[in-house]
Amino acid sequence: MNKVHNFSAGPAILPKSAIDASVAALQNFSDMGLSLLEISHRSKQFEAVVAEACQLVKEILNLNDEYEVVFLQGGASLQFDMVPMNFLTPGKTAAYINTGVWASRAVKEAKLFGEVNVLASSEDKNFSYIPKGYAIPEDACYFHCTSNNTIYGTEMFSFPECPVPLVCDMSSDIFSRKIDASKFDLIYAGAQKNMGPAGATLVIIKKSFLEKANAKVPTMLNYKIHIENGSMYNTPGVFAIFVCMHTLRWIKSIGLEAMEVRNKAKADLLYAEIDRNNLFTGTVVPEDRSRMNVNFVLNDKTLEAPFLKLCEERNLSGLKGHRSVGGLRASLYNALEIDSVQVLVETMQYFETANTGNTQNSK
Amino acid sequence: MNKVHNFSAGPAILPKSAIDASVAALQNFSDMGLSLLEISHRSKQFEAVVAEACQLVKEILNLNDEYEVVFLQGGASLQFDMVPMNFLTPGKTAAYINTGVWASRAVKEAKLFGEVNVLASSEDKNFSYIPKGYAIPEDACYFHCTSNNTIYGTEMFSFPECPVPLVCDMSSDIFSRKIDASKFDLIYAGAQKNMGPAGATLVIIKKSFLEKANAKVPTMLNYKIHIENGSMYNTPGVFAIFVCMHTLRWIKSIGLEAMEVRNKAKADLLYAEIDRNNLFTGTVVPEDRSRMNVNFVLNDKTLEAPFLKLCEERNLSGLKGHRSVGGLRASLYNALEIDSVQVLVETMQYFETANTGNTQNSK
Repeated sequence: MNKVHNFSAGPAILPKSAIDASVAALQNFSDMGLSLLEISHRSKQFEAVVAEACQLVKEILNLNDEYEVVFLQGGASLQFDMVPMNFLTPGKTAAYINTGVWASRAVKEAKLFGEVNVLASSEDKNFSYIPKGYAIPEDACYFHCTSNNTIYGTEMFSFPECPVPLVCDMSSDIFSRKIDASKFDLIYAGAQKNMGPAGATLVIIKKSFLEKANAKVPTMLNYKIHIENGSMYNTPGVFAIFVCMHTLRWIKSIGLEAMEVRNKAKADLLYAEIDRNNLFTGTVVPEDRSRMNVNFVLNDKTLEAPFLKLCEERNLSGLKGHRSVGGLRASLYNALEIDSVQVLVETMQYFETANTGNTQNSK
Repeated sequence: MNKVHNFSAGPAILPKSAIDASVAALQNFSDMGLSLLEISHRSKQFEAVVAEACQLVKEILNLNDEYEVVFLQGGASLQFDMVPMNFLTPGKTAAYINTGVWASRAVKEAKLFGEVNVLASSEDKNFSYIPKGYAIPEDACYFHCTSNNTIYGTEMFSFPECPVPLVCDMSSDIFSRKIDASKFDLIYAGAQKNMGPAGATLVIIKKSFLEKANAKVPTMLNYKIHIENGSMYNTPGVFAIFVCMHTLRWIKSIGLEAMEVRNKAKADLLYAEIDRNNLFTGTVVPEDRSRMNVNFVLNDKTLEAPFLKLCEERNLSGLKGHRSVGGLRASLYNALEIDSVQVLVETMQYFETANTGNTQNSK
């Protein structure tokens, strides 16, 4: 079977080492003679998995003991509720920026729990840029942003100076580049892009922020409860956490600095071809172009279907844009090798020649 | 390697066919050339998995189109919040019975959202029986019960006549016996006992009940949203649902009638030995003894550790009672074969002979 090049936006490509470890553990986990699916989450062998996963998160992000790490369920979507339930104090305001579908959903949910101040939005230009230059009010409970917008392909390469606790949805670019994680008070991320399979949600909270949490929060939506119980208040997603742990081992073995170099090289290669090739146009302003999700369109929309068909023939998978925006999207998450991007670029060049007779001239 | 007999209370033993299918799908799902962990949840291949899983639930329980089926995350514990958030109407009362740790948690959470009337409790005798003979008020929003109490080993073999919507946590005995599912308005179950791995939660709701749901519920906690989106409002736990689907195929191939016969035979074998053997005592009144979780103690508490050590030597796993109650617990979920119970019984007999000289006399 030929290799499939997986550009899926999430669930997405994972390192081979994590998949191999999962296959082995499904058959016999940790020499227990049982499948990973059949063991108690309170066995010492699985407790070791959770402990290592949390420790790896702190090591990779260079976080000290001022931070707590937990694995929850429900994805970033449930965090859209949990953040304001825990931290939007009645009578006060939370500050958000609106940079796409997921950021909009975070705003919508927060409004159920209190006042929300949307400081800036890029909706005016179909979320094709990251707003800048807004001021964060000093009396906000927190400021919430989305570091990478999976659907529109924009990424925040700098974060504003923040006079209030900084909360960030990093679902689609966590562990893809070096960041100063100590600037953040709460980071959350659904695992299914850069960190593992669907079914695990990572939450990192600074203890000083946690102390400000509201008291009356339903138990399963209360960060303190999950932290006090070490991700084991109720039965956690055992399998998903196991895969995350192995993916985190792989990320650590590369390191965020080298990971960023890898990811930048892949993105640069693809954006250069989009800018060169006469058939394609990128949809995002150059300075905010995501290295994780590359959004582009065919200038002649009627060529979209034939191009996707060609991609399919060449085992290039997952390139259709999100159903809400259309066009094309190539997701270049950590585990995708640059070889796959090279095959995509060659396919774009072949398609150009076939349709225009042009051969790799500049625009 | 010798076979391990898995009496774990959950996550628990699964049918071999489901584990084998998972191993294969981790390597190449549905001939896509990708791991099950790496594919879009919106691929037609995975949509078919969700559709089949939901259909199997309805077929196995003989439910008609008046019912909706969804797979969520967060376990039964999150249902303790979602049920009252959606159905405890302000100014009205919900009726509960308290039959153990999980039922108590359900009560505690419901009280956050409105008035709760605890109709009956077996806490007076350490939850060793199922309360009966209580009257359900006709003006309650719903009546909530727990069909099987995993920690204490009691099971409801009949359900009360219910003048209001009947809501049941069936986490630990769903699909283990024939029930008239059409009597229930909402059934929920964490998958990790009889239905699949940790990380999936099954919810079955009658449409007429759903129509009564409160309007203002956070999106991720709103049943209507999840149903309208076919378990795909956000990224679902892809892997866990896949394993559930294969476990449901296996359950259907046996059928609930035959499954009940299997489960009754296993439980009868073990309870008979507990009642015969001079070293052991069952902790639950005979008429309410669970067929899923068999709770028993050694009359001489000092023999508990040596007995558990002997069990370990004989590859009998997961027999320690829940940390909140101690003693012993053998969970006999669907996928456990009667051979494993036979080995446990023989071990109890061997232990009796070694410690008393008795050889299988009646008490």
